[in-house]
Amino acid sequence: MCKVLMGAQTLIYPMPVLLIGAKVHDKPNFMAAAWCGIANGEPPMISVAIRHQRYTLRGIKQNLTFSVNVPSTDIVRETDYCGIISGSKVNKVDICQFNVFYGKLDNAPLIKQCPVNLECEVVHILDLGSHLLIVGRIEETYVSQVCLTDGKPDVNKIKPLIYCSDPACHYQAFGEVIAKAFSIGEELKHRE
Amino acid sequence: MCKVLMGAQTLIYPMPVLLIGAKVHDKPNFMAAAWCGIANGEPPMISVAIRHQRYTLRGIKQNLTFSVNVPSTDIVRETDYCGIISGSKVNKVDICQFNVFYGKLDNAPLIKQCPVNLECEVVHILDLGSHLLIVGRIEETYVSQVCLTDGKPDVNKIKPLIYCSDPACHYQAFGEVIAKAFSIGEELKHRE
Repeated sequence: MCKVLMGAQTLIYPMPVLLIGAKVHDKPNFMAAAWCGIANGEPPMISVAIRHQRYTLRGIKQNLTFSVNVPSTDIVRETDYCGIISGSKVNKVDICQFNVFYGKLDNAPLIKQCPVNLECEVVHILDLGSHLLIVGRIEETYVSQVCLTDGKPDVNKIKPLIYCSDPACHYQAFGEVIAKAFSIGEELKHRE
Repeated sequence: MCKVLMGAQTLIYPMPVLLIGAKVHDKPNFMAAAWCGIANGEPPMISVAIRHQRYTLRGIKQNLTFSVNVPSTDIVRETDYCGIISGSKVNKVDICQFNVFYGKLDNAPLIKQCPVNLECEVVHILDLGSHLLIVGRIEETYVSQVCLTDGKPDVNKIKPLIYCSDPACHYQAFGEVIAKAFSIGEELKHRE
């Protein structure tokens, strides 16, 4: 199995595409972000890498609150739009016809059309170079009732998007179930 | 669209399942991790959240280097095994029959069977509570030649796994292409 050196690349699979929300100049705004990951368990935290120039970042820095909204395949057009255009030029909420609501935090706008929404308070900001890594403590999680099965979030109803940069930049859906986690690995225990 | 409050949860879609490698007591070891994300563009960086008790963490702290290996659906059994068992108890490399190789960094073991491998040097360690958030600078990227198309990584050949905690913990494959990124959103421009 021959390996090819590609240089230092930001290449992992899968990457999400999430809509990061903040109030900027008192108006809700959203940007698309793929460079996010869960950062801690107790208390629950998330990290989001945001380029210094981003309009949404102004609101996050000012209010130290933000939201994370998980879009579904139904709003791929709106999600992509939020990654193309700056909120300094247009009102994305109007153009995307987002229904915005607020939960516990005044300045973390949430999108009703997104099946999963997190409200976050900033706990760390790391300047790593081209991007700031924002670490936020998740204060509350909202899930659309229609996306629950037996009271639990159901990925088949949520229909999340995957952002995929290679071979061409596109969004993919989730595919077939491959195996049960914390279970299929047990099959190797006889080798111990 | 009614929303249900779920409390503060680490709920985003998709999450990856990556094999984090380190040398611990001079032996290569790997753990499965879902809480990872790209953290910076220039220079390229990645963040990985690791629970304090993890055996792999000892090696990362000692050597300040680690690897990130993207498993394919072909090795879901081995990947899951690395998330079930501690390297303090067994030699996971032997049991999983991983072919380990090294690149530029002495203490970042890479798995040949994983189509994508990153070598990383630790630049930040944040204690966030239950987990340490390790931020690593990506020093080199390796891709299996058979997973390239026209010299570029091809997701259809890489066949990555998605970790999905809801409704039941399982691994999923990538599904159909939904839309072209930085493109389909243009369709909303007429509303500006």
